[in-house]
Amino acid sequence: MILALTPNPALDLTYEVDTIAVFAEHRVRRVHAAPGGKGVNVARVLAQLGRRALCAGPLGGATGEEIRDLLVAADGVRQAWTPISGSSRRTVTVVAPDGATGFHEPGPALSPAECSQLKEDLRAQLSSDIGPQSSDTSPQPSDDARRIAAVTLSGSLPPGLDGDQLAGLVQACREHERPVLVDTSGPALLDAARAGADVLKPNLGEALAATGEDTPLAAARALLDLGAGTVVCSLGADGMLGVHRTPAGDAAWQAAPAEAISGNPTGAGDSVVAVLAARLLMDADPLPDVLRHAVAVSASAVTCPVAGQIDVGLAARLLPTVSIEEIPCP
Amino acid sequence: MILALTPNPALDLTYEVDTIAVFAEHRVRRVHAAPGGKGVNVARVLAQLGRRALCAGPLGGATGEEIRDLLVAADGVRQAWTPISGSSRRTVTVVAPDGATGFHEPGPALSPAECSQLKEDLRAQLSSDIGPQSSDTSPQPSDDARRIAAVTLSGSLPPGLDGDQLAGLVQACREHERPVLVDTSGPALLDAARAGADVLKPNLGEALAATGEDTPLAAARALLDLGAGTVVCSLGADGMLGVHRTPAGDAAWQAAPAEAISGNPTGAGDSVVAVLAARLLMDADPLPDVLRHAVAVSASAVTCPVAGQIDVGLAARLLPTVSIEEIPCP
Repeated sequence: MILALTPNPALDLTYEVDTIAVFAEHRVRRVHAAPGGKGVNVARVLAQLGRRALCAGPLGGATGEEIRDLLVAADGVRQAWTPISGSSRRTVTVVAPDGATGFHEPGPALSPAECSQLKEDLRAQLSSDIGPQSSDTSPQPSDDARRIAAVTLSGSLPPGLDGDQLAGLVQACREHERPVLVDTSGPALLDAARAGADVLKPNLGEALAATGEDTPLAAARALLDLGAGTVVCSLGADGMLGVHRTPAGDAAWQAAPAEAISGNPTGAGDSVVAVLAARLLMDADPLPDVLRHAVAVSASAVTCPVAGQIDVGLAARLLPTVSIEEIPCP
Repeated sequence: MILALTPNPALDLTYEVDTIAVFAEHRVRRVHAAPGGKGVNVARVLAQLGRRALCAGPLGGATGEEIRDLLVAADGVRQAWTPISGSSRRTVTVVAPDGATGFHEPGPALSPAECSQLKEDLRAQLSSDIGPQSSDTSPQPSDDARRIAAVTLSGSLPPGLDGDQLAGLVQACREHERPVLVDTSGPALLDAARAGADVLKPNLGEALAATGEDTPLAAARALLDLGAGTVVCSLGADGMLGVHRTPAGDAAWQAAPAEAISGNPTGAGDSVVAVLAARLLMDADPLPDVLRHAVAVSASAVTCPVAGQIDVGLAARLLPTVSIEEIPCP
């Protein structure tokens, strides 16, 4: 089972309106509510890939309850949240026929005690071989479902949880000898690299901004220098670059889709994280193979209207068309 | 105690942003959540006027829980909601320094069984002399707090609750010999008049639109013709017109503030309803006196940034400055 930790989960609300205008009142035609936050999307994609996923992270308030209730209905996703006194955030996306307008709440500030509890809960989940109890309403899992085999840590950090504390979560995984993937941005990305995250998955902009480098290859190698095991940098329509360090030197591959897929890119990065967690962290497949699967699944996610959804059939059809090229690492 | 029935209560969210643009992503700086819906505002103003208020109406889902929790914190407001299977609505108001943009969810549809239960609960509340039990966490009320003395019914109707059912709620009050005020619009305003509501409080636009008349006096008298006891029509900065039928013929007064007050008019009409419920329905004060108080309290509400808030001190200072004029009813 893969533990998908979301430091700042959200209730994602989509409002359908006929038209949108600034400084006007709008009658919302239809409301769609979904559990959100990058780690939650990762868990939902893992479930669609046939992998067991456990959602964790800080959750609180009536909004937190709503996130939990919506996830109960999501097949194959289990939950083991750390309760907090604040209320989990909402995002509101107002969709008119000609475009979308988004409003993102900042999320509740975590107290130092809540940050400690989050780490303690993670340690307990990694130590335990009985899996989550309280919020697990699924049938008795089989034995191999009781063990956390890998951890993903995705999304923005809420107020009160800084890069040091993120590094502490990465270290906890390392102490329990479980591979951990981090998908975040800014200085926290560097902190995760220094803490020895097994995989980092920035997008191009995040990789360049955090490292100050000019190319994705240079940025990825800078993150390896800091301590990361593998860096997978998503390049939008150009696919993705994967780089890891071997005793013989750095090795890099770029995987790209045969043609650009248009659609909704929100959540495509989370589907990449899910594939990396399943095939790289858990199965330890060769990096080039993993990248091909990640490109195919990510392209299928772009065709789905909702973040956290993939098209497994389309991904299977796209897989043979994905190109893979080894990139020299001088 | 006054029962303030809200057919479509809401969780009112206010998002502070630096600037707003369509088809952009916005980071919300601060989130303010308040219990909303016109009847909820009425109850909160009643509490500030030192009157006991009981919130009732259909409430459901996680949003309903949040409304309930926020009201627990509001001094002096008790709650006796009718549970429904749908989730109560939200409103989102995005406030930038140069203006506000609103998004209103439609609210959950009530089933026929839920509409019946709403009426049954109202009858039970009117029959009971023990007041609400389950959701009342305030200290044991004194004896006169256990009896519903008057009812207000304010705001839009949710899908599934039509004008006929609104009329049924008015009739239930009449059968239990409790005065009832209705603040609504459209055909439901006419239904409430026909059902014999003791007081109607449309604003000018609502009164003219529902009756097809050209002046507030003619509209008010048309509503009296249908069966209403008293009509108070709010006229914005011009104050308000009150008309009732006496054995000697119709009598009408216009009360107006000494000067226009600028500010936030949202919720000012609800403060008028609260004054009418307290001073006209409960205390049976003379209509001109009641109108003067309503104008003063309403003007104080306009100076408050949040709907459902009044400035009791300001209202007391404004009261002697309110003009009152009898209007001939030929």
